[in-house]
Amino acid sequence: MLDSVLVHSPATLSNLGCGFDVLGLALTAPYDTIRMWRTAVPGVRIRHLDGYCLPTDPAHNVAGVALLALLREVPEAAGFDVEITKGIRPGSGVGSSAASAVGAVVGANALLGNRFTKMQLVEFALAGEMVASGARHADNIAPGMFGGFTVVRSLEPVTDITALAAPPLWVAVVHPQIEVKTSDARRVLPATVPLGLAVRQWANVAGLVAGFLTADYALISRSLDDYIVEPARLALIPGLAEARARARAAGALGGGISGSGPSIFMLNQTEATAQAVGAAMGSVFAELGIAFNTYVGPVGTEGARVVEEVL
Amino acid sequence: MLDSVLVHSPATLSNLGCGFDVLGLALTAPYDTIRMWRTAVPGVRIRHLDGYCLPTDPAHNVAGVALLALLREVPEAAGFDVEITKGIRPGSGVGSSAASAVGAVVGANALLGNRFTKMQLVEFALAGEMVASGARHADNIAPGMFGGFTVVRSLEPVTDITALAAPPLWVAVVHPQIEVKTSDARRVLPATVPLGLAVRQWANVAGLVAGFLTADYALISRSLDDYIVEPARLALIPGLAEARARARAAGALGGGISGSGPSIFMLNQTEATAQAVGAAMGSVFAELGIAFNTYVGPVGTEGARVVEEVL
Repeated sequence: MLDSVLVHSPATLSNLGCGFDVLGLALTAPYDTIRMWRTAVPGVRIRHLDGYCLPTDPAHNVAGVALLALLREVPEAAGFDVEITKGIRPGSGVGSSAASAVGAVVGANALLGNRFTKMQLVEFALAGEMVASGARHADNIAPGMFGGFTVVRSLEPVTDITALAAPPLWVAVVHPQIEVKTSDARRVLPATVPLGLAVRQWANVAGLVAGFLTADYALISRSLDDYIVEPARLALIPGLAEARARARAAGALGGGISGSGPSIFMLNQTEATAQAVGAAMGSVFAELGIAFNTYVGPVGTEGARVVEEVL
Repeated sequence: MLDSVLVHSPATLSNLGCGFDVLGLALTAPYDTIRMWRTAVPGVRIRHLDGYCLPTDPAHNVAGVALLALLREVPEAAGFDVEITKGIRPGSGVGSSAASAVGAVVGANALLGNRFTKMQLVEFALAGEMVASGARHADNIAPGMFGGFTVVRSLEPVTDITALAAPPLWVAVVHPQIEVKTSDARRVLPATVPLGLAVRQWANVAGLVAGFLTADYALISRSLDDYIVEPARLALIPGLAEARARARAAGALGGGISGSGPSIFMLNQTEATAQAVGAAMGSVFAELGIAFNTYVGPVGTEGARVVEEVL
């Protein structure tokens, strides 16, 4: 039986341009690193090896809540010691809380002999995500668990996830270090949308899904734009319009706000383009005097995974 | 050089459940039969061999207008004699006008040595569709021209069509012989939709496109429903809710209003199911004392095509 595991759990993009609350994509970087030990002592003990001052009480920690939900389905006495090193900054909009929740339950499952399906693990992770975001939504959890490109149809109580292979793509993400409160990001959303605009949006959703599944990069590029949510949130992220313009000029296929921001993502066909696009977006925030991080990496074909096992 | 051609141009489904104004699917039956002769005499002469009393003045006939648009791009003196036998009833909601427009330009192109691309032919057919429906929209023309499953992103002035292969499916269509005026079908549409409902709709669009492209019949079945347009049009088609219920009970994957109605389509995995579903839907209209036709056939992998050539 495994004694300990080391898990890498990557950042994820939700919304993915036009696909608000539905589409998601797994990245390869940044990622959270989670080391876990199985213990005979029941319960969950969490240490954070990063400087983000996240709660370590399992009942208030996303990984802790997810693990407690999982342990309720484990009949024998079992517990976990957990050391989390967050590589994904909380509040950056690239699925930081989902990554910790997903990584923790993937690690726990390995320590328990892989007795749960990925869909069961999604349910446990959702309990953790609920603590962080107040919403039981799988739009970051799905790509974090399955990798690639995901479609979430959320019809309570069932979470309906379709995991699909993504074509080769390089993603550039810039995280300007400004705070976008989730409450603000939700508050600016329109209550209703004109039917014609909704049709344009779902035309793009159709085009984007078809583009991903047929590796039609031109179609992906034409279809990414979000006519509804990004315009409403534009004012929350200074520099967004300019970053988008410079990214397109540098060769990006397109992109937009990651999650509810403030990170901005751009999809690209090559690593070289993604590097140029990352630098182009960064230059906007440098000029604005806003600190930022950039991440460039390929789309993640798998989600959270065990990278080291100790017997 | 070809002297005459015989073209079959199939009916098509637009909207396709959740994909209002965007998605389309080619059928194999019913279809219009169009015989055309190339003439040295410029212009277009049309005869209808059916009983639908459609205008034969080319300037007021969908096939005629499409052919006149095509002839404007032909430098040499050329004309067409055209005999149309409509197998698709006008006003049935399965792309009757689009079929005539598409079939005519496909036939003309064959007679002219296939000098135009399908996208050019779409543009000519759109001119014809404009006469019939007052809208320059490719949602029936696209599947009629390319076959299979189509995504239309309409951003004037460009018509952006993506033609995709559809998985094997059998379609049952019932056409209750009631009139649904296009103006009424448009008038009942909501001007705005709640954002949450729009999100559910594009989640279904994402699911349906993914289901088609991965031949995931369960996903297709879960994703077909239209939360926005069909509820608004329900009152225009007596028997719709009951026909849908009986179709699902008979094993249909799902379906909805075809175009703006009154036809109702259901997708099915097998011919036997499609036959049972067609009969189940027909029984509703029989009980209501409304005359109806049913059509059952596989999805059309190609659109309008030349079935006979005479040198």
